[in-house]
Amino acid sequence: MTKNPRGSRMPPLALPICLLGANVDGNPNYCTIAWFTMIDDEPPTIGLVTGKDRKTKDGIVENRTFSVSVPSADMAVPVDYVGITSGRKEDKSTVFRSFYGKLKTAPMVEECPVTMECELRRIVELEGTDLIIGEIVEVYVEESVYHGDEPDPLVLDPLMYLSSGAAYHRLGERVDDAFKAGKKYRRGT
Amino acid sequence: MTKNPRGSRMPPLALPICLLGANVDGNPNYCTIAWFTMIDDEPPTIGLVTGKDRKTKDGIVENRTFSVSVPSADMAVPVDYVGITSGRKEDKSTVFRSFYGKLKTAPMVEECPVTMECELRRIVELEGTDLIIGEIVEVYVEESVYHGDEPDPLVLDPLMYLSSGAAYHRLGERVDDAFKAGKKYRRGT
Repeated sequence: MTKNPRGSRMPPLALPICLLGANVDGNPNYCTIAWFTMIDDEPPTIGLVTGKDRKTKDGIVENRTFSVSVPSADMAVPVDYVGITSGRKEDKSTVFRSFYGKLKTAPMVEECPVTMECELRRIVELEGTDLIIGEIVEVYVEESVYHGDEPDPLVLDPLMYLSSGAAYHRLGERVDDAFKAGKKYRRGT
Repeated sequence: MTKNPRGSRMPPLALPICLLGANVDGNPNYCTIAWFTMIDDEPPTIGLVTGKDRKTKDGIVENRTFSVSVPSADMAVPVDYVGITSGRKEDKSTVFRSFYGKLKTAPMVEECPVTMECELRRIVELEGTDLIIGEIVEVYVEESVYHGDEPDPLVLDPLMYLSSGAAYHRLGERVDDAFKAGKKYRRGT
């Protein structure tokens, strides 16, 4: 392979998209986030990177709760709208239908096939951003995406963001089993 | 939509997979990671979540450098092998061909179409895991994946991990433009 150095730039990555939600002054507010990761599995914990001055963050600090909603690929237009529009300038509370779960103050997006509500555990102050860490207290999954006991990934049809070329893609076909495929590995092959 | 609560569980997410690389005692070591996120874009900064006792982490602390290599979907078998095999028990240094860039001590995976080398900036100690944060000093992209000025996402063919059902998938078709699709949004539609 021949690789070209591209300098100190953003790498081309395929990242899942989510909507970070919180109540601000009693109204749901959402922002679109591609920079997030699982942090732990026991208890399930998630971390999201946000700008330091985001309206949604105000609500997270206020309520100590937030939500993460995972949109499907057919939601690209409203999800992108929420991403390019500041909650400080426009009321985004009615772009999606909101519902609440056991925490009562973490608005989740009804249209998203997967949502979760979280309790704020910690905000890690980084240089130019903040990492908001929360414990997932309940996950909600749309009934119609189940195939047997588990959600079918291709029916979930999650919206992916490509930093290279600034495009949205959908998820593609299954390639192999995780935690099993490696058993086929033979040295020297 | 009708949503079923699934309790305090891992949510079904489609996550990109990467190989975190570091030299340990002068030899390349890699571990497979699905829990990582961009942290900042100026300068480009990446954060990866690892267990507290990982051989690769020893090398990162030793050299203050590390690499992130992004495998394509046809690499599922060796990538999964590296994920299910501990570097403390088996020598994984020859599973991939390694190359070095300007930092000299951050081994990158030759077979991966996208790699980057990073300088360690900070390790954030979390409850059960650590967040390793590094500044990306150089990104390398395989020549053959370019379509014009940018890598073609479907030629890059990144390997995705689905937590639900423990499966690997590839990336699917383009859906829309990011940072533009939202301009089509009309209230009440």
